Amino acid sequence: MDVLEAIYTRRSVRDYTDEPVTPEQVQEILRAGSWAPSGLNNQPWRFVVVRSEGKRRELASLTKYRRIIVGASVAIAVFSDREVMYNDTKDHQAMGACLQNMLLAIHGLGLGAVWLGEIVSRSAEVNAVLELPARHELMAVLAVGHPASRNQRSSRKGMEELLLKEF
Amino acid sequence: MDVLEAIYTRRSVRDYTDEPVTPEQVQEILRAGSWAPSGLNNQPWRFVVVRSEGKRRELASLTKYRRIIVGASVAIAVFSDREVMYNDTKDHQAMGACLQNMLLAIHGLGLGAVWLGEIVSRSAEVNAVLELPARHELMAVLAVGHPASRNQRSSRKGMEELLLKEF
Repeated sequence: MDVLEAIYTRRSVRDYTDEPVTPEQVQEILRAGSWAPSGLNNQPWRFVVVRSEGKRRELASLTKYRRIIVGASVAIAVFSDREVMYNDTKDHQAMGACLQNMLLAIHGLGLGAVWLGEIVSRSAEVNAVLELPARHELMAVLAVGHPASRNQRSSRKGMEELLLKEF
Repeated sequence: MDVLEAIYTRRSVRDYTDEPVTPEQVQEILRAGSWAPSGLNNQPWRFVVVRSEGKRRELASLTKYRRIIVGASVAIAVFSDREVMYNDTKDHQAMGACLQNMLLAIHGLGLGAVWLGEIVSRSAEVNAVLELPARHELMAVLAVGHPASRNQRSSRKGMEELLLKEF
């Protein structure tokens, strides 16, 4: 899939078929995330892949989007490693670039995903469920699967609102 | 260009030829940025396009990467609008997703760019040069042009370091 097409046609996908996401697809998604740019090339991103239904149900219990995580083939919890971070704003930007690479790769592979951010309000409990030390700061969870439908619509502000000035 | 190829072959480009970046290319780059995901779809990104050499020199005087901004065809200053932001961490992630879309679009168009973050330490002066109120928070400047060379190497940590656990 062309890169511009991927950028413009990617949508949040919240309903999935039962078809599994393969380990090779998960590796490609993580690898794509890892090729994001980061300040000082510090690569703060860390990943936990949650495929087991039991563990997904534990994660799901920590968000109002329970149904999405339970229905996904795999959940990928994305963390930032506090021990390599150097500037919160820049590291969080890098994490956003990483997550966007992952979403675009997922779309390019014919899969679908949604970026779940609300669960970050329960980050301490997520770390407990995933048996991770506080050093790893939860950034988001991606629910990933084969799309049951692709009818999600979205819209963006017009360029006249986004382009403030030209010199 | 295939989306995965774009993700894996994008590199920072710091040297540019004299060939101009067209207004249509700039529009495509901004449009790609605008299709990033954001929490609550709040779309906090705002852009200032700096093509004029005089204004680019003023910007360039605010960073140790002066040479890059002076040598670029166009600089795109990327801001987050404080009046629509709702959560600094999530908004900065969204801004990173926006910047990554822009970098991938630039690469897909056959152009090159580098994400300049150091200039953020002079953000108040950048806002003064660009005649913007404090409401707009500088996130980064992208220097964009036709690559003079594409020999930039980069590397990433191995997956054994990035993938913390699998369940």
